[in-house]
Amino acid sequence: MKVDGKHYRSLWWNAEAQVLEIIDQRSLPYEFVVEQVRTRDDFANAIREMRVRGAPLIGATAAYGVARAMADDPSDESLGAAWRLLNATRPTAVNLRWALDRARETLRLVAARDRATAALSLAHEIADEDVEINRRIGVHGLDLIKNIASQKPAGEPVRLLTHCNAGWIATVDWGTATSPIYHAHDAGIPLHVWVDETRPRNQGALTAWELGSHGVSHEYITDNAGGHLMQHGLVDLVITGTDRTTRSGDVCNKIGTYLKALAARDNNIPFYVALPSPTIDWTVTDGVAEIPIENRDPREVTHVQGVDTNDALGVVQVTPSGTPAGNPAFDVTPSRLITGLITERGVCDASEAALASLFPELAVAAE
Amino acid sequence: MKVDGKHYRSLWWNAEAQVLEIIDQRSLPYEFVVEQVRTRDDFANAIREMRVRGAPLIGATAAYGVARAMADDPSDESLGAAWRLLNATRPTAVNLRWALDRARETLRLVAARDRATAALSLAHEIADEDVEINRRIGVHGLDLIKNIASQKPAGEPVRLLTHCNAGWIATVDWGTATSPIYHAHDAGIPLHVWVDETRPRNQGALTAWELGSHGVSHEYITDNAGGHLMQHGLVDLVITGTDRTTRSGDVCNKIGTYLKALAARDNNIPFYVALPSPTIDWTVTDGVAEIPIENRDPREVTHVQGVDTNDALGVVQVTPSGTPAGNPAFDVTPSRLITGLITERGVCDASEAALASLFPELAVAAE
Repeated sequence: MKVDGKHYRSLWWNAEAQVLEIIDQRSLPYEFVVEQVRTRDDFANAIREMRVRGAPLIGATAAYGVARAMADDPSDESLGAAWRLLNATRPTAVNLRWALDRARETLRLVAARDRATAALSLAHEIADEDVEINRRIGVHGLDLIKNIASQKPAGEPVRLLTHCNAGWIATVDWGTATSPIYHAHDAGIPLHVWVDETRPRNQGALTAWELGSHGVSHEYITDNAGGHLMQHGLVDLVITGTDRTTRSGDVCNKIGTYLKALAARDNNIPFYVALPSPTIDWTVTDGVAEIPIENRDPREVTHVQGVDTNDALGVVQVTPSGTPAGNPAFDVTPSRLITGLITERGVCDASEAALASLFPELAVAAE
Repeated sequence: MKVDGKHYRSLWWNAEAQVLEIIDQRSLPYEFVVEQVRTRDDFANAIREMRVRGAPLIGATAAYGVARAMADDPSDESLGAAWRLLNATRPTAVNLRWALDRARETLRLVAARDRATAALSLAHEIADEDVEINRRIGVHGLDLIKNIASQKPAGEPVRLLTHCNAGWIATVDWGTATSPIYHAHDAGIPLHVWVDETRPRNQGALTAWELGSHGVSHEYITDNAGGHLMQHGLVDLVITGTDRTTRSGDVCNKIGTYLKALAARDNNIPFYVALPSPTIDWTVTDGVAEIPIENRDPREVTHVQGVDTNDALGVVQVTPSGTPAGNPAFDVTPSRLITGLITERGVCDASEAALASLFPELAVAAE
C-alpha cells in the first residue's frame, strides 16, 4: 500500500543488488526505515529480532532466506542448515515452518545447479500468493462495504471498526482485515475507520500509521470505546483479522475481539472476520474449549512504549512497582457472534457447513 | 483503608494544627504524599489542581474550605466569597456545588460568632456521611460475596472484576465498588480481584495501589482481557461504580463498563453496580438516549503517563504524530444487563420500581 504517495510491499527483491529489502517494523509507527537483508544470518536475525512480523510476512522472508542460502551453496547440507537456522528463529510461527517445508520439499527435487534460481522463484511465488489471497479478500469485502454505502445518503462515510493490526505490514501487501478497507478507499467510497488501540501492545498505532500513510480517514480510540460508538449508531461494520479459526467458525484473535463481537451483536451491527484459508485449523471444533491461550509477559501490560518528550523511544511504567498483572494475549469469539467470514473464495457463514462447502478439499484432507 | 498497615481516610482534620490533611492524589500510585491544606486559597488549589479527586471527596474538601474561611472571617461576605471561590474550582462537579450549598444554607442561620464551629462540624458531618454510605454499601455487598463464597470449595478465592477506580481514595473512605471488597477481605473471605487498567487514564493503577496497600490479592489486566477470563470461569462477580444512574437503573460509568456488562451477561456472571443514592439522577429515564457523553482531550488516548526509567514521572506518545483520536469518557450500561444495584439501603433490581421502593422520598421529590 502507499507510504507518502508511493506504493510499497512490506518486502521486495532488489534484483540488481541481489538483496531482499524490508521495512524495519521495530521502528514503526514512528519511523519508516528500509533495510537490506544480505546474508543468510541477516535473514535469521531479521525474523528473530522482529524486523519483520506477521505470519505471512515471516514465511515469505524465510523463503527468501532459503534462496540466499542456495545462491551461496546449493548443496543438500546447505539446504538442511538453512531450514534449521531459519526454523529456529520463531519456533511457534506456523507460516514459517510451512514456508520452509515447502521450500525444502520443492528444492530437494531440483538439481543443485538450478536450486538458486528455483529457490528465488519459489520465494517470489510465496510472496505473490499471499498478495493474491489478500487482494481477493479485499474484493469480496469491498462488496459488503459497497452494499452498506448504497444504503447511506451520498457522501456519508461508511464507518468501520477494526481491532489490532491485520494490516498490510503484517502481510506482504493489502493485509487481511484492512484489504476491504483499502479496496473501498481506492474505489472512492468515503470511509472512516475507528482503530482500536489494542492493548497491551497497541498494534492499533500500526494500523493508524498504515491508514494515515495511505490517506484513509481514521480515529484512534481506546479498546473501551467501541461499545459506546456502536450504541450511538457510529459504527456500520466491524472487520477484524484472525490468528486461527476452527472448522466450526470460532475465531481466535487478539484479546478483546470477543468484547467487540458482543457489542456488535447487541447493536445489530455486522461483525465480519477476514480469513485467509491457511489460518483455518481443521483439527479444532470448539475454540473456547480447545484452543490454549498464550499468557504473555506481564510487563507488556504494566509498561507502555512510545516516543518520549526527547523524541526518542521510551518506556513508562503505569502501575505501582510490584503490581501483579495478567496478560492473556488472545481470545475466542464464538461463531454465533460472527456475521460472516471474508475468505479469498468469497464470504460465507461462520459455520462448519459453510467453510467445508467453500474449501471442500481442505475440509476433507483434515478428516 | 490501610496503607502500610496503617488506617487512613483520604482526608482528615488535624485539630492540633487546625489544618486539613489530604493525600496528594497527583502522586498516586507512585508516591504516597500527605499534604496540609491551610489557607482558603490552599483549599481552592487542592481541588482545582486535583490533589483531591472523586466527587464525594471534593465535596467534603470544599466543606472544610468553608470552615477555614469561617474561622478567618465569619461574615456573610466571607461566606459568599468562599462559596464563589470554591465553586469555581471544578464547575462540573455535582457534589462540590451540593456541599457548598448545604454549607451556605446551614451557616446563614447561624450567628457569626458560632459559624467557625458550626462550619467545622458540618464538614465533619459531610465527610462522615460519605463514609457511612460507603460502609453500608460494603455491608450489603459483603452478603453477595459471602453467598458466592459459600458455594465454592473452602479456601478457593471469590474472583471479582472491577473497572476504573471506584475506590476509597475517590471517596472519604471505603470507596463504592471497592467497599464490598474491603469488607469481604476484612471478614477473612479469600478474594482475587481482576483490575481493569481502564484506558485511557489507567485509573486501574490507583485501584491496584489501593488493593495492594490494603493487602488484597489482585491482578492488573488490560480492558480487553475480561471477556476471555469470564469465558473460562475465572470471574465470579463484577462490581463497578457509577457516575450517574437513571431512575430506571441505567448506569453511566467510565467508558468500557458496557462491554464488561455484555460479557458478564453472555457468561451468566452477576454484574452489580455500587450505587450511593446521591448519584441517582431522578430526572433521566433512558440513559443511552438522554445522557450526553463528554468527549475529552485526544491526548489522553495518544499519550500515556507513568514512571520512566529514571524513576521520574514521564509521558510517551504511542501513536504516530498527528494521529486523530476519539475519547468518549463514559458509556451507559442499560439496566437490562445489570443484575442488581448495591445501595446504602440494600441491594435492588436495576429498575424504576425497585429504586423508587428503596428511595421513595427521593423518587417522589423528583416528580
